[in-house]
Amino acid sequence: MNYQHNFNPTISDTHLFDEITKEKEEIGYYNLVHQDTTEFKAYAKTVKQKNIVVIGIGGSTLGTYAIYKFLKHSKPLFKKLYFLETTDPIDIKAKISNIDLEDTLFVVISKSGTTIETVSIFKYIHSLVKCDKNNTLVITESDSKLNEYAQTNGIKSFEVPKNVGGRFSVFSAVGLLPLAIVGLNIDELLRGTQEIHDSFFNKGVEYERVFQKARFFTEYKSVFNINVVFSYSSRLEGFNKWYVQLWGESLGKIDIKKTRQGLTPIGIIGPIDQHSFLQLVVEGRRDKTVTVVKVNDFHSKLAIPHVKLEGLEELDYIDGLEFSTLINMQADATIESLNNLGDIPCDVITIDGVSESSIASLMYEYELLTSVCAKLMYINAYDQPGVEAGKIILKSKLKNK
Amino acid sequence: MNYQHNFNPTISDTHLFDEITKEKEEIGYYNLVHQDTTEFKAYAKTVKQKNIVVIGIGGSTLGTYAIYKFLKHSKPLFKKLYFLETTDPIDIKAKISNIDLEDTLFVVISKSGTTIETVSIFKYIHSLVKCDKNNTLVITESDSKLNEYAQTNGIKSFEVPKNVGGRFSVFSAVGLLPLAIVGLNIDELLRGTQEIHDSFFNKGVEYERVFQKARFFTEYKSVFNINVVFSYSSRLEGFNKWYVQLWGESLGKIDIKKTRQGLTPIGIIGPIDQHSFLQLVVEGRRDKTVTVVKVNDFHSKLAIPHVKLEGLEELDYIDGLEFSTLINMQADATIESLNNLGDIPCDVITIDGVSESSIASLMYEYELLTSVCAKLMYINAYDQPGVEAGKIILKSKLKNK
Repeated sequence: MNYQHNFNPTISDTHLFDEITKEKEEIGYYNLVHQDTTEFKAYAKTVKQKNIVVIGIGGSTLGTYAIYKFLKHSKPLFKKLYFLETTDPIDIKAKISNIDLEDTLFVVISKSGTTIETVSIFKYIHSLVKCDKNNTLVITESDSKLNEYAQTNGIKSFEVPKNVGGRFSVFSAVGLLPLAIVGLNIDELLRGTQEIHDSFFNKGVEYERVFQKARFFTEYKSVFNINVVFSYSSRLEGFNKWYVQLWGESLGKIDIKKTRQGLTPIGIIGPIDQHSFLQLVVEGRRDKTVTVVKVNDFHSKLAIPHVKLEGLEELDYIDGLEFSTLINMQADATIESLNNLGDIPCDVITIDGVSESSIASLMYEYELLTSVCAKLMYINAYDQPGVEAGKIILKSKLKNK
Repeated sequence: MNYQHNFNPTISDTHLFDEITKEKEEIGYYNLVHQDTTEFKAYAKTVKQKNIVVIGIGGSTLGTYAIYKFLKHSKPLFKKLYFLETTDPIDIKAKISNIDLEDTLFVVISKSGTTIETVSIFKYIHSLVKCDKNNTLVITESDSKLNEYAQTNGIKSFEVPKNVGGRFSVFSAVGLLPLAIVGLNIDELLRGTQEIHDSFFNKGVEYERVFQKARFFTEYKSVFNINVVFSYSSRLEGFNKWYVQLWGESLGKIDIKKTRQGLTPIGIIGPIDQHSFLQLVVEGRRDKTVTVVKVNDFHSKLAIPHVKLEGLEELDYIDGLEFSTLINMQADATIESLNNLGDIPCDVITIDGVSESSIASLMYEYELLTSVCAKLMYINAYDQPGVEAGKIILKSKLKNK
């Protein structure tokens, strides 16, 4: 019997693991977990300003925002972090009006160094307050034009390694530096990523989990082409946005067989979106998986008091309940109702608490999951060729204006 | 020749228009456009407090937030509007810590009157500051338990009409009252809705547009099952969330043939999501339509100044450009790049400006579009049976805790 084929290679778990291990030698994000943070912490200590304004967009801000939004109420932070990302003039003006620019460190982040939004906003800021080595910090690739600007003006700059893509850069200087400056514990962040990293590469529970999930998502990609992350904490809103970028931009690609791939990410928040998107999940087409993210310990004793509201006595059974218990029971009720349907793939991630290590573990696991899915879909997770055409058109429009 | 069938009825434009006209007699939102606002404006004038806190969730807040977020920087407003919607304890505490509760009007909104999130939060607020007729306002159905509470305590209440569903209620007391209180022009909001309403029901341009779009979306629903709204202004973030609820909860239904229907809404923001979701749109599976929303006039002269950044001279061609021109050119470049692909359905809505009538027109058109799509999909746009199971499970969990 003779047999010929041109199928995509099918890939065994062993082969897949070998591929990821090989990729780890080239792709930088995997190894950020064991980096030395001494320089970041030393720089952070020197910052005197009360306000930290990150000027950046996309991968330069989303991860940092995700972590800051989740943790900013978890402990007293003595500096405030802001993000200037968009070219919307109303948004720029509204944000700036709340900040004392004279007491601000501007952190200009652009991997390429020539991101149009970032440079536009930086120029505008420059016209409002003199930006120099005393109030400006640059994070960029070592050979970028932005770094040239920093060098010329004696402005401190930190490097985004060439082999760390923007959307995988949160645990590089891009995220760690601003987060260290505002007072978060970046070693604890890295400890959270190390736990996942070590378990995964030692073929522990993370390896099992990530492989199983990636197999399911990619094998069913034509049926369940939408992956909903349903986060039961409003403070995970930034995480949801980061997830949308990571998943959408990494997996929306043309594969080696020239077929269009892509799993569509959607981030929703519980219980708010029980009153919005959930109806579609329950009764709509069976094209969605649901991943519920819960927070085990909110570190909060805030409770519903015993207050009598005449007419509303039927709801008195909630009196005395802690809000953290209520929100987690809401999550559990949603999970149970979805599982009862029997035909909606649903998994539940419960992170330990509102802490650096918890959010970092969650994010690093998603990075690994993205890399493994990409391998199974025979695509490159780390480029974004699809957005180049729009950039070229914009440039030509701007030059011919 | 004999012929029998049990197909869904196919519906001609004439028949469809008749159906909508008939529905208009029963479904309340259509006719809100011509309501008398005297009472709302009169009440608004009596409010002395500086802070307005809406306690509500889903349809009780999303529309109001959409309009407030879009307009709050468009003119000087002398009151601030906040929303308490979630049971997340960290979120509740963080929000409350910024508000002087002694100088606050609490607007408790629940159509049913027994929304668990709303009552829980109201009880908590009640334990912090005495809530009575001097600082509390209720918006609910006339025969709800919440209204009973209001009556018993002499608290002013306004009605959500029974035939106006939560997600279609923004132009009822639910939205108009809080917006009037903070100083927005609710007659201008209604004028925006009237323009669309009148043009639609007089078979003008709105009628053509809505019918054409609804036909396309429903005829291609199995291919393009995801409808992306790409809003080129960060201030439209609330509109996006409102759209997700309206579209998802109205159209995610089981139809008269017992088949699962549903068009999945996604809201993204330009230019930020050019650095995130756009890659998936361009190279991913062809399962998405894209509606770009642009703002014609941002009423802003904010411009990129002529600032020299050594090393970055190649970007000097942006100097002097207004940010509003830049963001709209970014939108146009994205549209052009999508149209060049040739296989992504894309439409562009340009609203006039940052004004009450502009945002109201946009929202009312989306309400009409939702109603027409629902008719073409043979579903009821106005209920949400899918979320009841989870509520029952939660109640049982809470009672057995």
